Amino acid sequence: MKIDIIPGGVTAAAGFKAACCAAGIKYRGRTDMAMLLSDRSCAVAGTFTSNVVKAAPVVWDRQIVQNVRAARAVVINAGIANAATGETGMAMCRQTADFTAKALGIPADQVLLGSTGVIGPNLPLDRITAGVTMMKQTLSNNLEAGTAASRAIMTTDTVNKECAVAFELPAANGQGTVKVRMGGMSKGSGMIHPNMCTMLAYITTDCAIDSALLQQAVSDVVADTFNMISVDGDTSTNDTLLVLANGAADNEPVAAGSAAFAAFREALFTVCRTLAILMAGDGEGATHLMEMKVTGADTKEHARTLARSVVGSSLVKAMIYGKDANCGRILCALGYAGVDFDPAVIELYLVGKDDTLCFYRNGCVQAFDEDRALAILSEKEIRFCCDMKMGSAEATAWGCDLTYDYVKINGDYRS
Amino acid sequence: MKIDIIPGGVTAAAGFKAACCAAGIKYRGRTDMAMLLSDRSCAVAGTFTSNVVKAAPVVWDRQIVQNVRAARAVVINAGIANAATGETGMAMCRQTADFTAKALGIPADQVLLGSTGVIGPNLPLDRITAGVTMMKQTLSNNLEAGTAASRAIMTTDTVNKECAVAFELPAANGQGTVKVRMGGMSKGSGMIHPNMCTMLAYITTDCAIDSALLQQAVSDVVADTFNMISVDGDTSTNDTLLVLANGAADNEPVAAGSAAFAAFREALFTVCRTLAILMAGDGEGATHLMEMKVTGADTKEHARTLARSVVGSSLVKAMIYGKDANCGRILCALGYAGVDFDPAVIELYLVGKDDTLCFYRNGCVQAFDEDRALAILSEKEIRFCCDMKMGSAEATAWGCDLTYDYVKINGDYRS
Repeated sequence: MKIDIIPGGVTAAAGFKAACCAAGIKYRGRTDMAMLLSDRSCAVAGTFTSNVVKAAPVVWDRQIVQNVRAARAVVINAGIANAATGETGMAMCRQTADFTAKALGIPADQVLLGSTGVIGPNLPLDRITAGVTMMKQTLSNNLEAGTAASRAIMTTDTVNKECAVAFELPAANGQGTVKVRMGGMSKGSGMIHPNMCTMLAYITTDCAIDSALLQQAVSDVVADTFNMISVDGDTSTNDTLLVLANGAADNEPVAAGSAAFAAFREALFTVCRTLAILMAGDGEGATHLMEMKVTGADTKEHARTLARSVVGSSLVKAMIYGKDANCGRILCALGYAGVDFDPAVIELYLVGKDDTLCFYRNGCVQAFDEDRALAILSEKEIRFCCDMKMGSAEATAWGCDLTYDYVKINGDYRS
Repeated sequence: MKIDIIPGGVTAAAGFKAACCAAGIKYRGRTDMAMLLSDRSCAVAGTFTSNVVKAAPVVWDRQIVQNVRAARAVVINAGIANAATGETGMAMCRQTADFTAKALGIPADQVLLGSTGVIGPNLPLDRITAGVTMMKQTLSNNLEAGTAASRAIMTTDTVNKECAVAFELPAANGQGTVKVRMGGMSKGSGMIHPNMCTMLAYITTDCAIDSALLQQAVSDVVADTFNMISVDGDTSTNDTLLVLANGAADNEPVAAGSAAFAAFREALFTVCRTLAILMAGDGEGATHLMEMKVTGADTKEHARTLARSVVGSSLVKAMIYGKDANCGRILCALGYAGVDFDPAVIELYLVGKDDTLCFYRNGCVQAFDEDRALAILSEKEIRFCCDMKMGSAEATAWGCDLTYDYVKINGDYRS
C-alpha cells in the first residue's frame, strides 16, 4: 500500500477544523492555545505518560479514551502543565471541558484536554475560557489553521512539527477505493524521554475505524516511534498521544487483520515516526539529530533497549556536539543497557551520507581516518549502526546532542 | 564503636607503601601512574562494573578477587582505559603484572591492575614498565606518598580524593584492643553512574579479616555508597573498587557476625561514603553537590531507586546549576523512577543549612518564598528530602549539577 506524504497537519483530514489564539497563559506576544474540532464524533485512542505523577489533563483524557471511547474536540494550552495541582487541577479540567462543550454544542465528556509547561502553578481559568471563546470564532479547515495550531502548542520548541499522509482504502459503498487522509502535530523539546513524554501529539484521520482497532494500531506503532526518542531522559508528567478518527473519508470501516488495517497502521507509523524524529532533532539546545540503529539483536525488545541506551547517554550526546569520534562511549552505553551480548563479535559503524567508517570490530576499537570521521560528524544528522550478531531483530532510536544551550535553557526555565 | 577520621589515604594503614610517577601515558607535566604495595599478602575483595563491555584490567582483577583471593600490589594508570582492546589488552595486563612481579619479587597473580581514560587505544607497554621501575625506587609509607598516588590517578577530576579512619578491635593476643586503620583513594568525575563506574577506588586496611568476610562487607556497603552517586548516568567500562586487608594491626581476626565485623563494616561504610560524596561533588563541570534523601519508602530498594532517579535527572541537575526552584522537576523524576507511590500524600522539602522549605504537599506544589529558596540553592551543597509516607525504608543518593563546563569537557575529551 502506497503512503503519500501530503501538505498540512491536523486539518489535512476531512471534517477537522483547528484554531489558535494568544490567551496570555504565560507567554507574551505569541499564541498559546489551540483547539481541534471534528464535524462528527470520532473514535479515539491514545497513550499517556508512564510517570506516576500524572498531570490533570492526562487523567482527564485517559478516562475519555478508556471509557467514553469517543471525542469531538481537543483544547490545548502551552505555558502551564496543570501538573501537581491536585483537586484544583482536576476541577480546572472539568470547568474547561464544560465551558467548551457549551460553547461548541457538544458533550463535555467528548472534550479532550492537553497542557504543557511549568509543573505546579494553577491554570488561569478566566484566560482559558476567554481563549475558547476567541478560538470558536476562527475555527477553520484550512491547512494554515492546522499549522497555526501546531505553533501555538510550542514551549521551548524552535520549530513547529506537523506531518500528513494520504492512502487508498476500499470504499464503504463497495465501488473501488477512496482516499483517506491522516495528519498530526506534536510539540516537545525538553523533558523528552517518552514512555510516553512533555510530548504532546495529536493525530487526526478521516478513516472509518473503531476505537478498539484504533487503540491497537496506536499501541503497535508507538513502541517504535515516540517511545524511541530521547532528549534528556526525563519522562514528563504530561506526555500524551491522541488519535481521532472521524470516518469522513467514507471508506469501508477497517476490519481487524485486514489489508486495510495493515495500510492504516503503516500510515500511522509514518506520521508518528516523522513527528518523533522532528522532536528529537529539535531537542532543547540541539544542533544535531542522532540516529542509533541496532541490528542483529536476539529480540526486538533488546534491540530497542540497546538503541535507546546510546541516544540517552550524556557522554555520547556531548561528543556529538563536539564532533569528537570518541566511539568508546557508544560501546560503553551499549554495555550498560542491561542487555547481554558478546563484545568480541559486535560491529559498530558511523554512517554518513556518502561515507561509512567502522569504529569497532573483533573486540577492538578500529583505527580510522580522523578527517573522514570529522566530515561525517559535521553533518546535521549523525547515524550509528551496530550489528549485535545474535539474531535478526532490529530497532532505531533518535536523540540529539547535549549543548551549552540545553544547560542555558534548563538552568532558568521558569523565568 | 567509635570511628575516628584520621589524616591520609592508602598509606594510613600499617604495612602499605605507595608511589607514583609521570610515565607519559597521555598527559604531559603531571603524574599519571600509581603503585600500592603491601609488605605481606592481603585478603582482597572488590566489586566491578556491571557494564557488559569490561575493560581488560577489570577482567584481570576480577579473576584475582574471585580465584586467587590474595594480593600484594596494585598498579594503576590514568589516560588510557585499556578497554575495547581485545586480546591485546589482556596481553598488556599479563605483561604489566609479570614485569611488576619480577621487579618487586612477588607473585604475578597477586598484582592487581587499574586503568582509566580514553576507551580504545592500546597502552604503551614500554612506558608502563618504565613507570613501574621508577615507582619501585620511591615506594614509601608516608602519608604524602598516598596523597601523591591519589593525585596521579586523576583524569578530569579537579581535586584528589582520599580519606582514612581508625577504630579499635580486640587484639590477637587477647590483651585489650589494638588500633586498626583503614584508608582509601578514588578518582572519578565523568562517566560516573557506578553500578559499579570510571570510578576507581582503592582501600587499604591493616585489619586482619579473611577475603570472604571482606567481600561480604564490601557488598554490604557499596549499595549505599558508591552505587548511590551519579554524575551523568553513564556506567563506565572500568569501574573498580578494591579493598586490601593485610592484618598488620594484629587484631584478633574478624569473625562473621561479631561486633568486630559490625565495627569493620561501619568503618568501611564511612570511608566508602566519604570517597563517593567527594566524587559526586567533583563531577565534571560541577558547581554544586546534590543530595537526595528519600524517607518513608516501603522497601530499601525502592528508596534507592527513587533517590537515584532524582540525582540522575538532567532537568534537576540543570535547575540546580541555574539556582531555579523548579520543584516540579524533582516530582517528575520521582514519578518516572519505576516505583509506585501516591502523589497525593508525599511531601518534598528543600533543606538548607539554616532553613527548610516545603516544595510539595497534599498533591500540590506549595507556594514558597523565592528569596529563601534562592538563598538555599546558593549554598554549595543542595539537599532535598522526600517522605513517601509508605513505610520506614530510606536511602540517600548524591549527584551534582549539569553545567556548561560538563558539555565543554565532554565535547572534546580525547584531544
